[in-house]
Amino acid sequence: MLDQASLGFATLRWRDGGLELLDQTALPAEERYLRPAGLPELVAAIRRLAVRGAPALGCAGAYGMVLAVAGEDDPVRWRRRLETGAEELIAARPTAVNLAVGVGRLLAAGRRLAGDGADPRRWTQALLAEARAFHAEDEALCAEIGRNGAELLPDPVRILTHCNAGALATGGIGTALGVVYAARAAGRTVRVLADETRPLLQGARLTAWELTRAGIPVTVQADGAAGSALAAGEVDAVIVGADRIAANGDVANKVGTYPLAVLAREHGVPFYVAAPTTTIDLDCPDGSAIPIEQRPEEEVLAFAGAAAAPGARARNPAFDLTPAALVTALVTERGVLPAPDRTGLAAHCAGASSG
Amino acid sequence: MLDQASLGFATLRWRDGGLELLDQTALPAEERYLRPAGLPELVAAIRRLAVRGAPALGCAGAYGMVLAVAGEDDPVRWRRRLETGAEELIAARPTAVNLAVGVGRLLAAGRRLAGDGADPRRWTQALLAEARAFHAEDEALCAEIGRNGAELLPDPVRILTHCNAGALATGGIGTALGVVYAARAAGRTVRVLADETRPLLQGARLTAWELTRAGIPVTVQADGAAGSALAAGEVDAVIVGADRIAANGDVANKVGTYPLAVLAREHGVPFYVAAPTTTIDLDCPDGSAIPIEQRPEEEVLAFAGAAAAPGARARNPAFDLTPAALVTALVTERGVLPAPDRTGLAAHCAGASSG
Repeated sequence: MLDQASLGFATLRWRDGGLELLDQTALPAEERYLRPAGLPELVAAIRRLAVRGAPALGCAGAYGMVLAVAGEDDPVRWRRRLETGAEELIAARPTAVNLAVGVGRLLAAGRRLAGDGADPRRWTQALLAEARAFHAEDEALCAEIGRNGAELLPDPVRILTHCNAGALATGGIGTALGVVYAARAAGRTVRVLADETRPLLQGARLTAWELTRAGIPVTVQADGAAGSALAAGEVDAVIVGADRIAANGDVANKVGTYPLAVLAREHGVPFYVAAPTTTIDLDCPDGSAIPIEQRPEEEVLAFAGAAAAPGARARNPAFDLTPAALVTALVTERGVLPAPDRTGLAAHCAGASSG
Repeated sequence: MLDQASLGFATLRWRDGGLELLDQTALPAEERYLRPAGLPELVAAIRRLAVRGAPALGCAGAYGMVLAVAGEDDPVRWRRRLETGAEELIAARPTAVNLAVGVGRLLAAGRRLAGDGADPRRWTQALLAEARAFHAEDEALCAEIGRNGAELLPDPVRILTHCNAGALATGGIGTALGVVYAARAAGRTVRVLADETRPLLQGARLTAWELTRAGIPVTVQADGAAGSALAAGEVDAVIVGADRIAANGDVANKVGTYPLAVLAREHGVPFYVAAPTTTIDLDCPDGSAIPIEQRPEEEVLAFAGAAAAPGARARNPAFDLTPAALVTALVTERGVLPAPDRTGLAAHCAGASSG
């Protein structure tokens, strides 16, 4: 199975009794691990995107629940810390549903454990096992997504992607980039065109970092240049990840995804969304029900020393919505769902894995 | 007439026997004027975009022809410097046709003057008068474009623009922003949403600078955020400038313009191109004949300290092409041409001014 160990880094890991996060705000200049001392530090790290990407946030949320109760041996306080920890983690970032999914799974496990009347320290140990299991499952989901998506691609293939839906965004080899890694492992010749993805440059910093490490050729472009690349026939497929997928198939993903979907349709290029089924939120009827995080204006106005004119304001939504009708196919661990809609998505989520 | 004096700065000016350029690479942090000592310095300033924008490049090219022959009193050398100066200036940047137009006008004037057998120093004086006239004409064109375009807009109006097609891009009040200034002068309530315009951030740095100076509210966004703004109904009109317009109406403009045109059509928002008729190149049958400048990879990979991952390449076309079919109307000094095509454009260029 393709996993993070094969890529030579860990997006996050539990080590020596604590959580370690590869600090993504320092990449590509520096490869350093953060070790949040407790829940407030982890929430702060999530907010400033030291760890980001929907599936990775799910894993961070799961481990965060262990941090929330770590060292607590009073049963009443343990239960309270479990509940308030869940609230604080989920509130850290609103759009990616996986954060709530990971936290929710650990919350449910914690509530079951705390009903047993045993030693809180043993509850914490059991919670950690649950978080590790969640992480391992995410790794397996990525491998399956990659395998399923790779079958869609021609050889050679030129893939356009946006933001980072790679190993750095998950507990495994990534979703959109999981497909890239799997296609390469299957012997295909793969080239990637990466939108730099303003304002935080996850494409230029993170996608380019992990692909060059893996020896996959990657070319970075300004986000506005995607139109001419598609118009010139330089792209065989667009593949992106997702932060949340509504029940009707509408996709919330990094701002700038929606323009790519419109342009891909304009030029007859397939637009694939790669995500685990944990990213599908059947409680959201459509995209309008997905909360879109508004990030600080400073990220746009004063990034990396390039200041905008004083007095200007900024509009800085972190995500946008792509209507389901623009999605050629959804790739999950269960298989490939062409033209996702409400009926197809419900069946896909209910059905057994095809992978 | 609305002119640069009313805005309180000069994009370029001839003063004390030399050309002065407001250094646009230093804005908004610093307002300083460059004084190229000769043609090589001017060509270098054009290449690094200290002066940019199609109409402003036309004026810079015109004044550059004066610099090319300045101080020369040998008739043979004067003629040679005129000819080689024209070649060097036109080669400085390939896409904007106005540079060649401004240079060509001065070249023709210089050839006529040099046939008179008079004193080369008087030829130079006459050339300078021609360059000043070209500049003054550009200023008048902008005022007319603004007046014509303002009539298209509702009140209040929310305008989305890309890059900088403002006073800083012309010898007057600008083309796309000329429409903004004219609409405001006509009493309309105007708000501008400015794409930051990677890689060189002309929107965040230049458009925001000149609009905030003029007291017009401006909000900057990442280029990828334009899709969600249009989808949310937050834009009444998209207005951009042009670097060259082919005979069939195809428009070359700053990279990222084409995606806006596709998105505007998707959401029923008018997409206007504001440019003087000097930007129309009837010798280019369609967009495919317009040369698209490829800029250094460094502009994308290592801008303002935010370095991409080592080993990544970059794709950095400075412009893209918008098919004529996506242009709701072309606004020139002669009036408004809806749905520009080959026939309409030929008639528009041949006809008398309606402004």
